[in-house]
Amino acid sequence: MFKFNPHREKFFDLFKEAAENALAGARALKEMFETYDNPQESWKKIKDLEHEGDRVTHRTIRMLNQTFLTPIDAEDIHALSTALDNVMDAIEAAASRMVLYKIDKVSPEALELCEIIVTSTEQMAKAISHLPKLDEMDDYCIEINRLENAADDIYRKAIGDLFNEERPPLEVIKWRDVFEILESATDRCEDVANILESIGLKHS
Amino acid sequence: MFKFNPHREKFFDLFKEAAENALAGARALKEMFETYDNPQESWKKIKDLEHEGDRVTHRTIRMLNQTFLTPIDAEDIHALSTALDNVMDAIEAAASRMVLYKIDKVSPEALELCEIIVTSTEQMAKAISHLPKLDEMDDYCIEINRLENAADDIYRKAIGDLFNEERPPLEVIKWRDVFEILESATDRCEDVANILESIGLKHS
Amino acid sequence: MFKFNPHREKFFDLFKEAAENALAGARALKEMFETYDNPQESWKKIKDLEHEGDRVTHRTIRMLNQTFLTPIDAEDIHALSTALDNVMDAIEAAASRMVLYKIDKVSPEALELCEIIVTSTEQMAKAISHLPKLDEMDDYCIEINRLENAADDIYRKAIGDLFNEERPPLEVIKWRDVFEILESATDRCEDVANILESIGLKHS
Repeated sequence: MFKFNPHREKFFDLFKEAAENALAGARALKEMFETYDNPQESWKKIKDLEHEGDRVTHRTIRMLNQTFLTPIDAEDIHALSTALDNVMDAIEAAASRMVLYKIDKVSPEALELCEIIVTSTEQMAKAISHLPKLDEMDDYCIEINRLENAADDIYRKAIGDLFNEERPPLEVIKWRDVFEILESATDRCEDVANILESIGLKHS
Repeated sequence: MFKFNPHREKFFDLFKEAAENALAGARALKEMFETYDNPQESWKKIKDLEHEGDRVTHRTIRMLNQTFLTPIDAEDIHALSTALDNVMDAIEAAASRMVLYKIDKVSPEALELCEIIVTSTEQMAKAISHLPKLDEMDDYCIEINRLENAADDIYRKAIGDLFNEERPPLEVIKWRDVFEILESATDRCEDVANILESIGLKHS
Repeated sequence: MFKFNPHREKFFDLFKEAAENALAGARALKEMFETYDNPQESWKKIKDLEHEGDRVTHRTIRMLNQTFLTPIDAEDIHALSTALDNVMDAIEAAASRMVLYKIDKVSPEALELCEIIVTSTEQMAKAISHLPKLDEMDDYCIEINRLENAADDIYRKAIGDLFNEERPPLEVIKWRDVFEILESATDRCEDVANILESIGLKHS
């Protein structure tokens, strides 16, 4: 059934492109956090990647509308495409808050969360390269779940510390928001992993 | 297949009713924000619309339980019905916060967001009137996505300004919450658009 | 079709186990809130239950990967399993915040919300014991929806009061977060109810 579907590679190529793009976004965020010499410029770079991701999503949906037989269910293509877009959106949202809130220094926990986002998007890209084979995607999906738990632990410690250090309330509100968005990026990777597992289950 | 299904119109009528109701809610919110002469009374009006929406949802689910052949998949009817309910809920939640937080003046950004919510629910109602034809729903769905991005830009600028203007922390917390709920209403419209696209894909 | 499926009971037993575990978590949270003599110790107990829940989820997914014919759709098993996990996660998150934020006294509204969580998880466990019969699950699902609305009312009143009482901003931020997580636990129960209804619809 799969072997002779001419659209198979094209859809899977678009998913790979979206995942690689999210990974590029995660790496750009890490570079932004590590150097932090021109946050405005770093944000612009990440925004460009987000727009690139939007274009991939639109191409996927357009192809979906023109394709009669899809290699995986049309609604799964739609769901996966949307979920990949959400990963990139969360990464861009994190970058935006650093600039909008005029934050002048990156906290160590923000960098830690960012490193987890890079690893999680790496696992996501690897899993997607094995679509739709559940056996070959599964280890990556499990790792993405583990990384989400690790990010949640860092997030909790970070917001606990925010309050204990008696910082000014506005600082607390800003950083809580940044930590929350960073943590949510790993949740969005987990959403992708859940959809991959669900697709894999149908094809195993 | 569709032509002879006696339940087709009934389900589609209920979706139209739920969408029109959400639109009435959005317009009532805009009126509340524009006049702001009796927020408590405006909120009550929106709450009544929300209860009306709940009744439509319950009628839809009840009919679903009594219908053997549905014009679109039962789980899509369920998902769409829930998603439409969520739009109305977000609108009512925004109104509630204005009253609960005793906010005495509407900010320009809140009104801007409210205007986007009106436009987005209008597009949603139009898309639903073309259900399940993907071709005819698609432009409205794309517009709903664009409006969600526009709302996100306003939201970001608004919360950035909240911090830059050095307002009292409690004011910041209140307005951040109101802006977030208003922006989330456009996300909920986008959820509806995603479900409409997914239904359209199955029927194209 | 169902009668002779050897895996039916096993999957349904795992769902029951996950639901009972979430109920045990809700009851442990209520005990934590009622006594509040050793929050750290109470949190540890709830964390242990959360890990137990993770093990049930993993067993469910593993069995899913090894089963060819499932009593309900594979993706529904996946969705229900994830949704049950999310209920337990929200309960544990609420407990964690009380400790991380070093909160020294439980507010009456927090206890009220906790009591609703107990009732909602009870209804959830009862509904699951009737899977996949829509008729027999439906009353419990409707009650879960009602409880979510009740929790939302308490949540709103609680955050309204937070601001009216002119508390210190950091206190407001902490309690708003705790109330939000508690309320979200009832949303997660509602997610489970929605999935149960959706499964029931396919099998009615």
